Amino acid sequence: MTTTALDPNSLLEKHRERLDSAVKACSTRSYYSAFDESPSPRVYGEHAAAEGKAAFEAWQGQSFPLDTPGSQGHVATERSPYGFDLEVSYPHVTDVDPLIEAALAGMRPWRDARPEGRTGVCLEILDRLHARVFELANAVQHTSGQAFVMAFQAGGAHALDRALEAIAYSWTEMTRTPTTALWEKPARGEPLVMEKTFTVVPRGLALVIGCNTFPTWNSWPGLFASLVCGNPVVVKPHPGAVLPLAITVQVCQQVLEEAGFDPHLVTLAAEGPDDKLAATLAVRPEVRLIDYTGGNAFGDWLEEHARQAVVFTEKAGVNTVVIDSTSSFAGMCQNLAFSFALYTGQMCTAPQNVYLPAGGIDTDEGHKSVADVAAGLGAALDKLLGDDARAVELLGGVVNGGVLARLSEAASHGEVLVASRTVTHPAYPDATVRTPTIIGLTSEDSDVYEAECFGPVAYLIATASTDESTQLFRDTVRRHGAMTASVYSTSPAVIDDVRDAALDAGVALSENLLGGVFVNQSAAYSDFHGTGANPAANASYTDGAYVASRFRIIQSRRHV
Amino acid sequence: MTTTALDPNSLLEKHRERLDSAVKACSTRSYYSAFDESPSPRVYGEHAAAEGKAAFEAWQGQSFPLDTPGSQGHVATERSPYGFDLEVSYPHVTDVDPLIEAALAGMRPWRDARPEGRTGVCLEILDRLHARVFELANAVQHTSGQAFVMAFQAGGAHALDRALEAIAYSWTEMTRTPTTALWEKPARGEPLVMEKTFTVVPRGLALVIGCNTFPTWNSWPGLFASLVCGNPVVVKPHPGAVLPLAITVQVCQQVLEEAGFDPHLVTLAAEGPDDKLAATLAVRPEVRLIDYTGGNAFGDWLEEHARQAVVFTEKAGVNTVVIDSTSSFAGMCQNLAFSFALYTGQMCTAPQNVYLPAGGIDTDEGHKSVADVAAGLGAALDKLLGDDARAVELLGGVVNGGVLARLSEAASHGEVLVASRTVTHPAYPDATVRTPTIIGLTSEDSDVYEAECFGPVAYLIATASTDESTQLFRDTVRRHGAMTASVYSTSPAVIDDVRDAALDAGVALSENLLGGVFVNQSAAYSDFHGTGANPAANASYTDGAYVASRFRIIQSRRHV
Repeated sequence: MTTTALDPNSLLEKHRERLDSAVKACSTRSYYSAFDESPSPRVYGEHAAAEGKAAFEAWQGQSFPLDTPGSQGHVATERSPYGFDLEVSYPHVTDVDPLIEAALAGMRPWRDARPEGRTGVCLEILDRLHARVFELANAVQHTSGQAFVMAFQAGGAHALDRALEAIAYSWTEMTRTPTTALWEKPARGEPLVMEKTFTVVPRGLALVIGCNTFPTWNSWPGLFASLVCGNPVVVKPHPGAVLPLAITVQVCQQVLEEAGFDPHLVTLAAEGPDDKLAATLAVRPEVRLIDYTGGNAFGDWLEEHARQAVVFTEKAGVNTVVIDSTSSFAGMCQNLAFSFALYTGQMCTAPQNVYLPAGGIDTDEGHKSVADVAAGLGAALDKLLGDDARAVELLGGVVNGGVLARLSEAASHGEVLVASRTVTHPAYPDATVRTPTIIGLTSEDSDVYEAECFGPVAYLIATASTDESTQLFRDTVRRHGAMTASVYSTSPAVIDDVRDAALDAGVALSENLLGGVFVNQSAAYSDFHGTGANPAANASYTDGAYVASRFRIIQSRRHV
Repeated sequence: MTTTALDPNSLLEKHRERLDSAVKACSTRSYYSAFDESPSPRVYGEHAAAEGKAAFEAWQGQSFPLDTPGSQGHVATERSPYGFDLEVSYPHVTDVDPLIEAALAGMRPWRDARPEGRTGVCLEILDRLHARVFELANAVQHTSGQAFVMAFQAGGAHALDRALEAIAYSWTEMTRTPTTALWEKPARGEPLVMEKTFTVVPRGLALVIGCNTFPTWNSWPGLFASLVCGNPVVVKPHPGAVLPLAITVQVCQQVLEEAGFDPHLVTLAAEGPDDKLAATLAVRPEVRLIDYTGGNAFGDWLEEHARQAVVFTEKAGVNTVVIDSTSSFAGMCQNLAFSFALYTGQMCTAPQNVYLPAGGIDTDEGHKSVADVAAGLGAALDKLLGDDARAVELLGGVVNGGVLARLSEAASHGEVLVASRTVTHPAYPDATVRTPTIIGLTSEDSDVYEAECFGPVAYLIATASTDESTQLFRDTVRRHGAMTASVYSTSPAVIDDVRDAALDAGVALSENLLGGVFVNQSAAYSDFHGTGANPAANASYTDGAYVASRFRIIQSRRHV
């Protein structure tokens, strides 16, 4: 190691303060961030934004420079929701045997680098990714369709924080057992004395399966948790969102190589549209860890078939809002409208089912009927999205045709209370941009609201009472899962009931959000993303269960 | 709670010092024990032994007083390896629906007792079990066949320590996240401030499947880890070893009831010989956690089929000794002979495959051929077991006919270097007692030594060299698993090679054991039992991975 450019242990010292701060924040759950979320020139410098955009544009039409074992030729599969093909091509993996062999080749030196060395290297990788955050933001924008600022935050700064959080949890878990211990047992005459050595060893090959909407935010926690625990990682990106993970793999390989490790400890497995590469890799005996984000069908398939691996899935569910009453009708409508509109509702955390009593709700503006609430939400959406130029910065673009299809079908599911509108992007005329629709239902329409409708569709569901709303919430989430839930009520008793329902249903609850915090946002180090306690996800970013099984401890003992 | 006889939180205070000591020992891995392993009257009082034996004998011919939902009639399935039927009958579970319903009925109050209350109750249960340790020791002796002192230690004191260790790890994991946190994010103007609440919730119903040889030691860690994390537990004992777990369940129910909880949070699911109750329970959707100890066939079946649950298995493998050289030929032979003889080799940790160079080994008594080593081991066995009265206190009884059958077949597998001998028990003339046999093989005989031969059979395997021995060790354990491994060598280079092989194979290594520590023993709080890194077990007693997924954390958040 001493002869290489980067010494892993000095890398740990270099980043030690950041690691310690993250570890502390994870235990206090108080606010912390290591990566500034503001893309302002005052933070990142005058030229950072332009240089990042140029770096992104320089990839277009190019073949991305990665040497990937098992690949033959190249594939280009990405189209920006803003209306153009990226035309970046990547090595096309056609034979997984050489890929797996190459991934495993460097595992032992990586294991022998110990938690200290591996953590130093992974923290350095985060630093290098941070240095390319504007380039990454552009890549996320033009694969996911997120507006730029959101792509910078969710796809850059916040994703880096989630990655650091996963590294911090892994560090705590790997180092809670000492590397050596002295064991002295009292006995007749001489005590029995033994010296013991404890070594962290990897589980084996890790597979990370990325998604189209949050290629970095949802992939980095599993990638870095597995890597820092000693496991080589094969990254299989969504064909629609490869570039952000190609850049990620490039940075990982550069740092690994500079630190004297095999760069193929992290590889990119790009595929053609019909290759089913994830399914092929997922059941390979060498694969011992899988991190997946995406639809329920394949997530359930993985949990069912990849029995040789520990499988972490983040799927989807029916995110719920229970409205009983509010101290600020305007604040509630603005907050919910923002959550519906943000990234066109294309978030696994966006609310879908809004239950409220058919008789209406009490508010600071007097009693409001269901129609009044719909009108209030519609007005808030108009205020947020009335101006196209401002609207696109919140909505971003529609990520794929499936979302568009569900949006057009939604009208047939119930009464259209708020219609979706087509928005023209001032800078990208070919971008596909839509505003959310709100559909009126009753508790009878379970065939509609018990299914997830991913995209800009919210259901306003009239129930007999808040009690029924709460029971529907508990029951629906138990059976179909949810990533988020929220409640609006001025009654402490109702809040207690809904909290209790949230514990039964196993979903995180936000109460009376009226300001600048939204139900679809979760903050690293403080908010757990997903609970693992309902069908929407079997894991959480990040808790002990998310990292503890990514390595094993092997001991040896001897008399002294 | 205040109106009940036992207040869970005061129970935590009562046992807090013990909990804190256990938590500390788990992190230092230094020696600790909360339960004295000596059955001496000086420790436990003059009458404790006699009273415990009488309490055990009082169960014989009786119907064990447990009210078990879903049971109809009774079953009596236990026969002591010392030659008599126990004739204790237990409620026979014939319908799992009422059993599961009753187990789940009390889950919510148990959840709401929080980690503090549940930990207090579980620590009190350990205290009550400790008060019945002599009764438990007799029950373990006459179901497993262990000699009394071993039954008292492994089945009593050490099992209690393993249970406390599992509770300590669970406590650490459940309490690492605060119950409330204040989150304050800087923002333009007013900071965003939120109060957050974090609640530990159970996974669901837990199933513990006991084994015949270590009914308490192998069942208690999973039982108490699941229970303290909030999960109801159905205990399915091996039909040959029910009484120790019936006593366990009785004590759990008594303490739960006294503390105001539903006693059916812990139930005993006794079965007839052909009921296959474990397989029926294991695939029920309500069952979310399974702890299993036993043979590989059913363990592999559970891992493959119980997909709705997190499955922890402790199966079996081929435990290995690599002999290269030794500084004490006599000490090595005595140490190995003891490990072969202890409980007639009926331990998942007993050594089976002993590799040594065909050319012999260098020792403090000069060069020794393979025949010399066999003779040395034979002489050590004679010295240990020559006197029947002393022999039975080390060997105990043969637990079942399968062991006896494998022992008689062993002679046909190779050259009988040391023959097994029938021992007559002075106190129990009908007891089945045998001494170990040592069979000579070569590295060619992989068809023999790559299969586990559970019982008093050891293979002395002549190899081309220590290098081949080490490679066979690495390769065989990787493919077939092992719970333990040990090495004898005076060469630091050889020790390093074998340590490296142990890391690759994922098995704990004991080096040059010559005294009062034996490879088949693991000490709670310091030695991990099993690694989860080879096919013999997918879990370890006890590490973070063993407890972290037994609960989930549900948060709620609100502005302040």
